[in-house]
Amino acid sequence: MAGGPSTPALAIAVCEAGGLGFLAAGYKRTKTVREEIDAVRSATDEAFGVNLFVPTPVPAEPGSLTGYLRELEADAARLGVELGEARYEDDAWQDKLELLSEQRLAVASFTFGCPSVEIIARLHEVGTAVWITVTDPNEALVAQAAGADALVVQGSEAGGHRGGFGDDDDAGGSAVLGLLRLVRGAVALPLIAAGAIADGPALAAVLCAGATAGQVGTALMLAPEAGTDTAQRALLPHPAPTRLTRAFTGHLARGLVNRFLLDHTATAPSAYPEIHHATSALRAEARRRGDADAFNLWAGEAHQLAEARGAAEIIRTMGAGARQALAEVSARLSPASD
Amino acid sequence: MAGGPSTPALAIAVCEAGGLGFLAAGYKRTKTVREEIDAVRSATDEAFGVNLFVPTPVPAEPGSLTGYLRELEADAARLGVELGEARYEDDAWQDKLELLSEQRLAVASFTFGCPSVEIIARLHEVGTAVWITVTDPNEALVAQAAGADALVVQGSEAGGHRGGFGDDDDAGGSAVLGLLRLVRGAVALPLIAAGAIADGPALAAVLCAGATAGQVGTALMLAPEAGTDTAQRALLPHPAPTRLTRAFTGHLARGLVNRFLLDHTATAPSAYPEIHHATSALRAEARRRGDADAFNLWAGEAHQLAEARGAAEIIRTMGAGARQALAEVSARLSPASD
Repeated sequence: MAGGPSTPALAIAVCEAGGLGFLAAGYKRTKTVREEIDAVRSATDEAFGVNLFVPTPVPAEPGSLTGYLRELEADAARLGVELGEARYEDDAWQDKLELLSEQRLAVASFTFGCPSVEIIARLHEVGTAVWITVTDPNEALVAQAAGADALVVQGSEAGGHRGGFGDDDDAGGSAVLGLLRLVRGAVALPLIAAGAIADGPALAAVLCAGATAGQVGTALMLAPEAGTDTAQRALLPHPAPTRLTRAFTGHLARGLVNRFLLDHTATAPSAYPEIHHATSALRAEARRRGDADAFNLWAGEAHQLAEARGAAEIIRTMGAGARQALAEVSARLSPASD
Repeated sequence: MAGGPSTPALAIAVCEAGGLGFLAAGYKRTKTVREEIDAVRSATDEAFGVNLFVPTPVPAEPGSLTGYLRELEADAARLGVELGEARYEDDAWQDKLELLSEQRLAVASFTFGCPSVEIIARLHEVGTAVWITVTDPNEALVAQAAGADALVVQGSEAGGHRGGFGDDDDAGGSAVLGLLRLVRGAVALPLIAAGAIADGPALAAVLCAGATAGQVGTALMLAPEAGTDTAQRALLPHPAPTRLTRAFTGHLARGLVNRFLLDHTATAPSAYPEIHHATSALRAEARRRGDADAFNLWAGEAHQLAEARGAAEIIRTMGAGARQALAEVSARLSPASD
């Protein structure tokens, strides 16, 4: 939910409805993250979490970017902007880790890699539980060995960036149902399922498949509390295919298929955050113009089921729907009715 | 399960364990299908079904095959066989439909398209329920309008061929959890979920997500009753990525990644059954030699969870596991424990 949709108001509403609200720290200045944490704390006494991007360990080979940057020139020119510098940086990793230690949050979750044993131990010292996003059983074993308290098991159907470790794989990984079973067989940690959890029955499904909770992204993007872009809001509830692409940021992410995605998916290199910075101004200008064919429309595979309702209502309805689905299936399968 | 794994013994064992056994009629001579139906009938009084491939409506453009057939020459030469004729045919469609009408089966299921209203009505006249495999909500609406009694909702994680209508799409479609929710919103028919249903908790999950039943493929492939190739049996229970490819048959299908798949996925055309026939002898010879890098290793994303146990035991364990998962999650979510 980094890059727009995540807001303090959304986290607050989720917390107040009985969910565990999250703030996205990715792409943001540390100062802004601190202000957002303060905003949530001032509005609710409920626990909440913050999600951090683990930095890419090494910069991309500059030679691997040249052809793609040349290809993007036409897109930039069309929108009357310059491409950004394709620079490598670590998203203020140390500063944000210090902020987390200082803030003594309930949960810190990590995406794009596994923090070191030392970082996890330091968060444990201040009472913060550490959740790590994984996309296969090997990553689950690595995260468990590093000291993770829980794993966010991200299926291939999830919207936005793939959260696994290291190089992202073209094949896109496993969908959430099978992945939960595979990870459940590998580690004993609590699992939080992510991917296509659009309503109560889907939440009940991942709980049956071994998750302790579901993590919801796209299903909240039409809530008034979310910071979702206007053009994207208009498209999300309609049937349309999604695809994994590196075109916008240099890292595989799932979004609605649009012109930019079709033009560039075949050629975009694996180079995050370099490509993110190169396309940033271009995407901002496309957003400003409402040109939904030229910026990233992150969305999970079940985006069509997202509803424009208050976030608290979405969360409460989902919880009630999960209980109802469980009750109905249990009644149907009860031994007496066999 | 066509092309080897499906056998009368497997269908019989599934039926006897309380499941609905199926025979695969695809690729087989009508006479063989009749013999297999007789074999199941002579062994069990339980209901069972037969699955048919709907023919591709028009042959592929011959020009679209030339380059790919040339590419495959080296593979054929390496195995000392000739490529087969890249011929178009309809898998004895009319003969097999007549057989189904005459046999008055409990269920006929269809893959690769939607049979006509007339064909469905004819099957209804003889008391046969018609199930149609769908991969998106539009196909579900078409199948409902044609008179289907139930839909097999095939997620992108399923092994073997994608069962949707018409041209298969590179993106591979939606995973089963979100797809069930989307199809549930589109039609009122009973849904049978397919894809990564490897154990009881996964079965409970798809039931919660709106399915009336789960369809199991890969999870049965190590059973002694299955006709699964020896080299493939050895690989299935080990961690290994799967991918969608047209390399082997000209139609997207999910299998374990091997040399042939990596060499040819980028260039294989959408041309089924032409490519199936072209590679048939090549694949048979690779199988005979135990060369698992040169034939199709169909497998769903959760293949690693397949177990070498009797089919009846697999089915019974799955049912018991589903009940247990439902009971555990229901207890955890009961209002009293909130």
